[in-house]
Amino acid sequence: MNYKLPFIPERDDKPRKKGLTMVMDKGLSVQEAKNLCESSGHLIDYLKLGFGTSLVSNNLKEKIKIYKDNNIQVYFGGTLFEAFVIRNMYDDFLKYLSNYNVDMIEVSDGSMHMEHDVKCEYIRKLSKDFTVISEVGSKEAGIIIAPNKWIKMMNNELEAGSVNVIAEARESGNVGIYRPNGNAHVVLINKILDNVPKESILWESPNKSQQVWFVKLLGANVNLGNIAPNEVISLETIRLGLRGDTFLHFLPEEMKEEE
Amino acid sequence: MNYKLPFIPERDDKPRKKGLTMVMDKGLSVQEAKNLCESSGHLIDYLKLGFGTSLVSNNLKEKIKIYKDNNIQVYFGGTLFEAFVIRNMYDDFLKYLSNYNVDMIEVSDGSMHMEHDVKCEYIRKLSKDFTVISEVGSKEAGIIIAPNKWIKMMNNELEAGSVNVIAEARESGNVGIYRPNGNAHVVLINKILDNVPKESILWESPNKSQQVWFVKLLGANVNLGNIAPNEVISLETIRLGLRGDTFLHFLPEEMKEEE
Amino acid sequence: MNYKLPFIPERDDKPRKKGLTMVMDKGLSVQEAKNLCESSGHLIDYLKLGFGTSLVSNNLKEKIKIYKDNNIQVYFGGTLFEAFVIRNMYDDFLKYLSNYNVDMIEVSDGSMHMEHDVKCEYIRKLSKDFTVISEVGSKEAGIIIAPNKWIKMMNNELEAGSVNVIAEARESGNVGIYRPNGNAHVVLINKILDNVPKESILWESPNKSQQVWFVKLLGANVNLGNIAPNEVISLETIRLGLRGDTFLHFLPEEMKEEE
Repeated sequence: MNYKLPFIPERDDKPRKKGLTMVMDKGLSVQEAKNLCESSGHLIDYLKLGFGTSLVSNNLKEKIKIYKDNNIQVYFGGTLFEAFVIRNMYDDFLKYLSNYNVDMIEVSDGSMHMEHDVKCEYIRKLSKDFTVISEVGSKEAGIIIAPNKWIKMMNNELEAGSVNVIAEARESGNVGIYRPNGNAHVVLINKILDNVPKESILWESPNKSQQVWFVKLLGANVNLGNIAPNEVISLETIRLGLRGDTFLHFLPEEMKEEE
Repeated sequence: MNYKLPFIPERDDKPRKKGLTMVMDKGLSVQEAKNLCESSGHLIDYLKLGFGTSLVSNNLKEKIKIYKDNNIQVYFGGTLFEAFVIRNMYDDFLKYLSNYNVDMIEVSDGSMHMEHDVKCEYIRKLSKDFTVISEVGSKEAGIIIAPNKWIKMMNNELEAGSVNVIAEARESGNVGIYRPNGNAHVVLINKILDNVPKESILWESPNKSQQVWFVKLLGANVNLGNIAPNEVISLETIRLGLRGDTFLHFLPEEMKEEE
Repeated sequence: MNYKLPFIPERDDKPRKKGLTMVMDKGLSVQEAKNLCESSGHLIDYLKLGFGTSLVSNNLKEKIKIYKDNNIQVYFGGTLFEAFVIRNMYDDFLKYLSNYNVDMIEVSDGSMHMEHDVKCEYIRKLSKDFTVISEVGSKEAGIIIAPNKWIKMMNNELEAGSVNVIAEARESGNVGIYRPNGNAHVVLINKILDNVPKESILWESPNKSQQVWFVKLLGANVNLGNIAPNEVISLETIRLGLRGDTFLHFLPEEMKEEE
């Protein structure tokens, strides 16, 4: 930080286990990836090459290298995993990863039906050789999964070997853990928090109001994902109480009252 | 593509007649234009320098050259054509194009009143020396044009020499072929499709839900426009079934059921 | 301008007293700041390093130098001033500015309570050594300040030494002078205009519809702020009648009717 103020929450240095920020890259150029790393590389833990974008991107190897050189873990969006699996091409997916020097995998079933024990079996196998992250929740608007099922799936997937389990929201932030208007499903989220190790959950939070809501609920070091590249710095200020929305949140009571 | 999956729709290589993607540049710098071409140049057919932005842009010649070097056809937004015409400066507009080495023109009447035979006469004259694209639909919210009039105007303009006719939506996607909430005017669009050669129509679709809607209706090779520079790769994945929204759309039935 | 059309409003060259454009930088990289200056530097008067973003930004000195080399006045968002003041670290704030060679300050009270005479005292002291800009209006949704209080605060702050007084709207454009849906508080704004020197007011207008509304109300040379970096060129076309929304606004009546 360019100046160390008191009453600013502690943040771990990378690589870290909590307070993770996952960014979604929907097709940045090599130069734009460099720009992102220059401004925000120190704040980014995971970089997701969203859905199938990597298949139609130029200079992909070079871009992945830039992220890895900045100590950012890179993976392909789970939709790409599903696109290979639904075509019975799981082995080809592994070759694709190997070719691009990617050692982290997102296992998801947001766009296709997959029996949950099959999904866990993928996680179990893959976690021997890869860093595995898995996602719970449908991408389909209107599909409601009961809280007990969310909890069971999340815990099973962590037990199978996922380092983090992602709560789905899409880029738009209006499915999964959010209502169509973008507000959080509070009861669902609280039940999940009561029953799943919270430091293992990564909450997709593309919209500012969602980021603020989670930081107020769970503190500066909540794991948040689907952050747009140009919002990483802004998110960090929300975590640190340096934006209006959380400005008073981390201050001692007497300081708030004094004013 | 970085990996060739089966059951992905065919796309023609540039220059092509169908599946066109038109991008709106609202004032990119030269370096940003380079970034766009590096990541997405292979996917962009037309580049519109939106409305009057070219008049206040720096290094315009250099930027236009970058796009043309990437085999992208460049033109000024129709509002600029209208800004010259309403001032009775049509000849100066042609000089402006010549000075900037632009050989494609959008003829529109979205911001001013123009008799339709006058518009067609412009198209007829200009199409002798330029690639002409023309636009139907008002930029004014609340102005409803009857389907029969849309059809007649589109066919007349194609007959007069337009290579494509654009269905208006603005950058916001809430006028012309869309309702104020951004949903498509389904009846209007279906009537147009029944009566105008559909490979000649370019549908302005700035919002993702609109892009998804048209790809599901008309397939991967629908012509879409007013795409934001940072959404070109994402649009291509929607066309190819590599994003959740169209993930199942292009798969054979047995593959969907198997899962 | 790349071509001089008639019936385009006059704009002063920088440095200027009216028609100011204030841009919010939420964490651009050095290269992105260069891109912005190349495309739009001639159109930007003030550059705000939004809220506390400067504290977590890399290469801050270099970025500030780029803006200043382009004759853009740089300042830290008022939330940073408040973050130091609420911690009783006003003197440290001045050292922070000096270290980064920043000579303009925004004084605000949008996130904390501050007696108005205390705020004016800050303005009075600081205006001896700095260019001071101050902001009126709460960042909190639902807080309504009576028009008479807006007027009194604005005039007091101008009298205390602010070169401009900012009407609050946040990045989202839904508080302060705007309703939660983003529409302008018309009565409030008209009362302010009747009682505060209007060339001294800078209206935060992050959304296009707000920019259009103010240009139609107050002309091309209204002072507007919280403009996104990639909207600067677009805003200039709105000011000049080169975008659909204001296309007819600056034209003589006979030209509109002729068509």
